[in-house]
Amino acid sequence: MKKGIIIIGAGAAGIGFGVALKDLEYDDFLILESETIGNSFKNWPQETRFITPSFTSNGFGMPDLNAVSFSTSPAYSLGKERLAGKEYAQYLELVAKGYELPLLEHQKVNEIKKEDNRYQVYTDSKSFEAKYIIFAVGQYSTPDKSFGNIGIHYSEVQSWKQFTNEKQIVIGGNESGIDAALNLAKNGNKVNVYTQKSGLSAPDADPSIRLSPYTRQKFFALNANQRQNIKIHEKMELKRLTQQKNKYLLEFANGHLIEAKTEPILCTGFKNGAVKLQQNLFEEEEGTVLLNDYDESLKAQNIFLVGPDVRHQNAIFCYIYKFRQRFAVIIEEIAKRENLQIDKEKIAEYQKNSFYLANCNNCVVACDC
Amino acid sequence: MKKGIIIIGAGAAGIGFGVALKDLEYDDFLILESETIGNSFKNWPQETRFITPSFTSNGFGMPDLNAVSFSTSPAYSLGKERLAGKEYAQYLELVAKGYELPLLEHQKVNEIKKEDNRYQVYTDSKSFEAKYIIFAVGQYSTPDKSFGNIGIHYSEVQSWKQFTNEKQIVIGGNESGIDAALNLAKNGNKVNVYTQKSGLSAPDADPSIRLSPYTRQKFFALNANQRQNIKIHEKMELKRLTQQKNKYLLEFANGHLIEAKTEPILCTGFKNGAVKLQQNLFEEEEGTVLLNDYDESLKAQNIFLVGPDVRHQNAIFCYIYKFRQRFAVIIEEIAKRENLQIDKEKIAEYQKNSFYLANCNNCVVACDC
Repeated sequence: MKKGIIIIGAGAAGIGFGVALKDLEYDDFLILESETIGNSFKNWPQETRFITPSFTSNGFGMPDLNAVSFSTSPAYSLGKERLAGKEYAQYLELVAKGYELPLLEHQKVNEIKKEDNRYQVYTDSKSFEAKYIIFAVGQYSTPDKSFGNIGIHYSEVQSWKQFTNEKQIVIGGNESGIDAALNLAKNGNKVNVYTQKSGLSAPDADPSIRLSPYTRQKFFALNANQRQNIKIHEKMELKRLTQQKNKYLLEFANGHLIEAKTEPILCTGFKNGAVKLQQNLFEEEEGTVLLNDYDESLKAQNIFLVGPDVRHQNAIFCYIYKFRQRFAVIIEEIAKRENLQIDKEKIAEYQKNSFYLANCNNCVVACDC
Repeated sequence: MKKGIIIIGAGAAGIGFGVALKDLEYDDFLILESETIGNSFKNWPQETRFITPSFTSNGFGMPDLNAVSFSTSPAYSLGKERLAGKEYAQYLELVAKGYELPLLEHQKVNEIKKEDNRYQVYTDSKSFEAKYIIFAVGQYSTPDKSFGNIGIHYSEVQSWKQFTNEKQIVIGGNESGIDAALNLAKNGNKVNVYTQKSGLSAPDADPSIRLSPYTRQKFFALNANQRQNIKIHEKMELKRLTQQKNKYLLEFANGHLIEAKTEPILCTGFKNGAVKLQQNLFEEEEGTVLLNDYDESLKAQNIFLVGPDVRHQNAIFCYIYKFRQRFAVIIEEIAKRENLQIDKEKIAEYQKNSFYLANCNNCVVACDC
């Protein structure tokens, strides 16, 4: 099947990019999803909620923080401001259906080859061809498990109810680490959190660094008992994690050694999904995917990255309300290369709705108070 | 004391307008507050929270929904996304201090007279003079009590704990009515809500009409017992409320008569504060204050209205994230009349941060899904 653009991934970034293409009147595209729409969201631990609240602030230049298009709002679709992963997947399904996005599920991409300025995309059962490829694979399916198969990664937890009344060790003290600790303490566990630096104490205003207000508020809403059951140890960087018979050995950079009976829970974040999946198409430096001003891979022409892995200067695009602002910028660039006209009024509408961020010089998040 | 501009009220609108003036480099102004900064917020029932969540989304064109300036975020100052009234008042105090706003507390304005194109403003102890007056008095201090002194208005409730284990009647089924019913049911009361139409069933996407996701979610999170204790009766418009010895008589437009032992709780909203306080300066039509395109009173030149009472065409500015978008528009108009230059780059910054809405043609809030 030949297409102008193939989008890989039907999560928030892939669906959002698809809507933007339709909106800007480009129809020659296809979304390939290895599982089903919103699969990563469906795999969140049951108790996990979006840390960005949803609110139907659309229409005044400030669409719902979790909307992938500015004419939609998960708070409106689901009548809630605090969504679970499965609920968000429902919203994405509604959007895909509403915009009639061309999409194939259960198409895991195994290989991508370049032939005569076009890319051949091979899945288990089919092959596709496109001039442009948009990687929208997210991070959730590529957890950062630095210690082989040892340790339970946050993304492998189905529900925190599976851990009860024991001593638990959490590695990492940022968003997911504190969330894990909270939920474990609520279920009666005693939790030791080991971390280089905790988001709880970060002074930065940017929610990509600082602990979100939601998690912070939940932490301070724990009762005294639960709070006492969480101990946060800073300046503890885990270097090695090994299993010896029925115990686990943790070796820290500062020389500390700890033995544990339960398998440590790794809240160590995620790897750049696109790099991990397609090393021939992307490269990274110090954890940052190398991209040009249009989020195109420095390693492969016409291959673009959308979603939480995008970085520019100091700006971290790891939230939906951030990365959705790059869709139209990329589409404009592709249109330019293809000598296609894009309706300027449409672009103005994207700008008015905070869905268009071409220049990241002013993205520094600082709050006076 | 002579000033260019006097702002009446030091709530979200007054403080926000003051920051915008400072920001746009106009210093010849003074804020007069009848009580103290954020007084209305301090008077909220203890249990009341903002229905708009706070999140530090600043820096990406989408400042915190409850921020009065785009360089601040209550979620950042207070480390919470769900603020109580008293907490928000703290945030406003921080902002007033941070921006060194010229402000006098305990200056209740009794009279405003026009003399030779300038306004004389009289408080209990002082008099002031200004060419422009900005009314930022909000609504909270002018509750809509249509039945004389009978009925307890939402704004008169200090805490819902004062009502326990009784049958309660709530008049009004929108935001405050459902919030009242929720809190009463949680404290073991049986609640009958009488309303023309409940926000719970409104299909509109605009949170100024539809019940907010927060209140909706809280409603559906009640346990079965609590939920059963709330009965919502629609198409019941209260026409008369009278007290007879130790009972209350409610007469509805459809002819229904109800007797109650407890005093009904009126969640009947608020009147336009500025109109109520200064009938000689403002007039209204069908509940809407009559304003020109710059939010200037049609009845008095150089008298402007900011805050939740502002309406334009179909747009209802009753949220902070809405009404803050009018501050710079008004200041631009005043600057034009005074032949003052305003830094165009500053205005562009306001636009980029969704703090500038000159034209309300596109403010209709509609969500596809």
